[in-house]
Amino acid sequence: MTLSASASHDPVGPSASDVADADTPFIHNAWYVIAESAEITRTPISRTVLGHSIVLFRTEGTGEVVALQNRCCHRSFPLVHGRLEGDTIVCGYHGLRYDTSGRCIEIPMQKRKVPASVRVRAFPTVERGTFVWIFMGDKTLADSIALPHQEWMANDEWDRRFAYLYVKGSYVHLHENLLDLSHLSFLHANSFGTPEYARAPIEWKIEGDNLEVWRHVECRLPSIYAVPLGWVGAKALRSSGSKFVSPGLHVNTGIFRNLDATDDASQGTLPMVKVAQLLTPETSRSTHYWTLQARNFARGDATVGDFMIEQQLAAFREDVFALERITEIQTLEANLAFQEISIPSDRAGILMRRRLKEMADRER
Amino acid sequence: MTLSASASHDPVGPSASDVADADTPFIHNAWYVIAESAEITRTPISRTVLGHSIVLFRTEGTGEVVALQNRCCHRSFPLVHGRLEGDTIVCGYHGLRYDTSGRCIEIPMQKRKVPASVRVRAFPTVERGTFVWIFMGDKTLADSIALPHQEWMANDEWDRRFAYLYVKGSYVHLHENLLDLSHLSFLHANSFGTPEYARAPIEWKIEGDNLEVWRHVECRLPSIYAVPLGWVGAKALRSSGSKFVSPGLHVNTGIFRNLDATDDASQGTLPMVKVAQLLTPETSRSTHYWTLQARNFARGDATVGDFMIEQQLAAFREDVFALERITEIQTLEANLAFQEISIPSDRAGILMRRRLKEMADRER
Amino acid sequence: MTLSASASHDPVGPSASDVADADTPFIHNAWYVIAESAEITRTPISRTVLGHSIVLFRTEGTGEVVALQNRCCHRSFPLVHGRLEGDTIVCGYHGLRYDTSGRCIEIPMQKRKVPASVRVRAFPTVERGTFVWIFMGDKTLADSIALPHQEWMANDEWDRRFAYLYVKGSYVHLHENLLDLSHLSFLHANSFGTPEYARAPIEWKIEGDNLEVWRHVECRLPSIYAVPLGWVGAKALRSSGSKFVSPGLHVNTGIFRNLDATDDASQGTLPMVKVAQLLTPETSRSTHYWTLQARNFARGDATVGDFMIEQQLAAFREDVFALERITEIQTLEANLAFQEISIPSDRAGILMRRRLKEMADRER
Repeated sequence: MTLSASASHDPVGPSASDVADADTPFIHNAWYVIAESAEITRTPISRTVLGHSIVLFRTEGTGEVVALQNRCCHRSFPLVHGRLEGDTIVCGYHGLRYDTSGRCIEIPMQKRKVPASVRVRAFPTVERGTFVWIFMGDKTLADSIALPHQEWMANDEWDRRFAYLYVKGSYVHLHENLLDLSHLSFLHANSFGTPEYARAPIEWKIEGDNLEVWRHVECRLPSIYAVPLGWVGAKALRSSGSKFVSPGLHVNTGIFRNLDATDDASQGTLPMVKVAQLLTPETSRSTHYWTLQARNFARGDATVGDFMIEQQLAAFREDVFALERITEIQTLEANLAFQEISIPSDRAGILMRRRLKEMADRER
Repeated sequence: MTLSASASHDPVGPSASDVADADTPFIHNAWYVIAESAEITRTPISRTVLGHSIVLFRTEGTGEVVALQNRCCHRSFPLVHGRLEGDTIVCGYHGLRYDTSGRCIEIPMQKRKVPASVRVRAFPTVERGTFVWIFMGDKTLADSIALPHQEWMANDEWDRRFAYLYVKGSYVHLHENLLDLSHLSFLHANSFGTPEYARAPIEWKIEGDNLEVWRHVECRLPSIYAVPLGWVGAKALRSSGSKFVSPGLHVNTGIFRNLDATDDASQGTLPMVKVAQLLTPETSRSTHYWTLQARNFARGDATVGDFMIEQQLAAFREDVFALERITEIQTLEANLAFQEISIPSDRAGILMRRRLKEMADRER
Repeated sequence: MTLSASASHDPVGPSASDVADADTPFIHNAWYVIAESAEITRTPISRTVLGHSIVLFRTEGTGEVVALQNRCCHRSFPLVHGRLEGDTIVCGYHGLRYDTSGRCIEIPMQKRKVPASVRVRAFPTVERGTFVWIFMGDKTLADSIALPHQEWMANDEWDRRFAYLYVKGSYVHLHENLLDLSHLSFLHANSFGTPEYARAPIEWKIEGDNLEVWRHVECRLPSIYAVPLGWVGAKALRSSGSKFVSPGLHVNTGIFRNLDATDDASQGTLPMVKVAQLLTPETSRSTHYWTLQARNFARGDATVGDFMIEQQLAAFREDVFALERITEIQTLEANLAFQEISIPSDRAGILMRRRLKEMADRER
């Protein structure tokens, strides 16, 4: 079913208790980006994901990514401060040696075979294009749960740029932010929002697993798009889509049509921007946030790439600002009663949060 | 009844459990200063009072002060980051518009009337002289609870200076500090205390709601008063009064008589200093502290005003130092048993803390 | 019984629940170093030990060390901000005066005798050589519990240097670190460890209260010993002992024999280094750590003293690094299940931790 904004029977009222918020337990049975591929080398690094500290390195031969619990099972020293020997990592405190499966295969001083129970957790990883993904949940489910990676994030049909932002806020709030673009007219009034946005009709595409929102706005495009397209001042139709794909991925799409253009040919393939929003909870109140921006125009033009990612980041830093202020006031007023109210444009966000809550509940 | 220091039957022993301390719940049904008048303009500011974040601005027409819950009821973004449109404030995240009563009167995307339940709290305020007061409790009681403001804090009979101090400590401890001036001989030995203070007879004026302490000390006045009065080296009678007025106000009075003066005329109107101590709990362990110093002598002499407020602040910073060290050791030793002992000069302080405790209990 | 490494029947498995960890309550009935002698003068200082803030000063006449609860029993102002008058300390807030027994002997304003119950705690101290020790527990037991001080820490037969390190970690972990030197080959690979260490046979000397571990390693000595002994490049036998003496003291010993020396005379008295590791819990996750290094060679050579203490500190800072990273990951993952595994070389450490646990349990 596709719902339009005319579905004005949407309730305006308190959010129900069955929607996720910052305090909802993490969803482990899902894939999250843990690092950029280039970050992982033969020098171990550590990163915290879903509250777990993880050590990451590559094997010597095949260069595969290894992700282990970053806490020696002996006396808790972080393995990241150890050293690699071939495909094993040796704890920097007492020398316990772990293989890529997390099993401890050598204890200095110990002549007998190390029992199989002496081990750290190992986590499945998949490397695709720019990023490495990790699966933090039940290993036996890893294969059956789809990697959110999408073809355009790595193939030749797009030019791409990416960046990393650290957000002292919940990934739940960030997902909701990305799914409801009505905030563009307010939070991003000075960056890539335009005033028409907030009141533009919303098209919901909610069906089965699909959770998607579209807006079609006639406007003068903001600089981020108008400048590289050479459409400054022109009237354009801007279609913006937001799609919740999984707890670790959100995709935003922008499609542009020049309404002043008389040249039919120019309307062949519409210029389009796709943005993968890669959200990885670090803790309940902090999120790793990678953003991968892809365009199908001005291909090979590095200046356009630089310009567009910088413009996008300027706007996203406004989101980070908002989310961090929200975290602060939630923390300050943690002991005060507060009943969140939801409004019609939250429809998709509420459905998304309900889905996150269900996923979390299912894991208990 | 007026009690004198001869009431030496005062117990020296553990404080009873019916007196307020830093952990006693806030008293909401009282007026507190939230800001200096000049701070509140058409650019919203926020301030935390009794653990609630409040946004403050003035209306366009009449310039009235508006004080609202600084947390949008939709997704908790602080309203202070929004913008004013006429007498409404528009949330900077999704554009919810609130009127001065806190009611949300517009939700972009929402065509139907916004239900009356969609709102933030609005708080009564009163502006008097230098300050704006706020009432954080049950609105229906606001009118029946007296504003602690006193005439001399704003009328023409006094010259005034004020300053703001931020204290990482409980307002309860600060009230107690102000009510028992026996600490002047010790904490303020190098600023405005004199050695005679600690052992000077105390006159309690405790009757009904009145909670007042006086000391009359023959001494050489400290510089803060001696210099502007031209009494350096002279013998003087210094009468010092402390009065607990309400949880948000304490008044200290100093009256000076030159005992070396032979000129009867000079004793006509005695020189006097009054200090309004405006205490506003921010959290259980932090306090906004404004101090308003008024004098009835050296009128119109700005140099004297500068000198006296600076001297007073030097001493008050000693109080802040003491209160912050107390907070630190209470925090460090929070899990250790500790039984506070009270001494005779705490008589008024203990009565004041008992009153605060009763007020807090009554609100539950 | 003396156990050798051949006791390979040691379990490799989860640590039992009867061993102390960072969350085990402190052991109060024991002596701990609280300060260097030279730190305590007629100007009071404060220091936190076992979670209690203590004020320290010397008496005027005999120069004895006084250690009192650093929290006035009246309104919790730290006594360290007061002033000494003779052998009494006067609180800097309201002037309560305490004698060296902690009893309040004067309250300004109070004419009658102060009841004996008005007091702060006083703690037994003993000054020996470089350090002052404190007893935080039941005073009546202080005499019956041996001061861990050992003769060589102060007598003429050794040259000594000492230093202070502050560790954001539990003293339990630090004791365990000091008792199992198998970490030398890993954590100290670049400072004073040598590769042979981890696999060297361990000799346990565990009998009654004795908890001691020795290792005898043939190696080229690290610079810290080889340079001052003039044994660079020579083959040596390095015997290293670790002994848990009490919750506040650990002693490490190094004895060196030059295996290349043909000169029998040189083997008369073997060169030896003894290190007193003085561990004093500040809080459950922070430790005062003094280290006193004594040598019986190169006597009177200040350059050797400087060199050896600096080399030792370089290595100990590696321990501090490890312990602080452990504290961090324990804090980050406090809510995650984690089962510590113990290995054969932990034998003595586990016995020590069991003893600490028993001592703590006994105090409840």
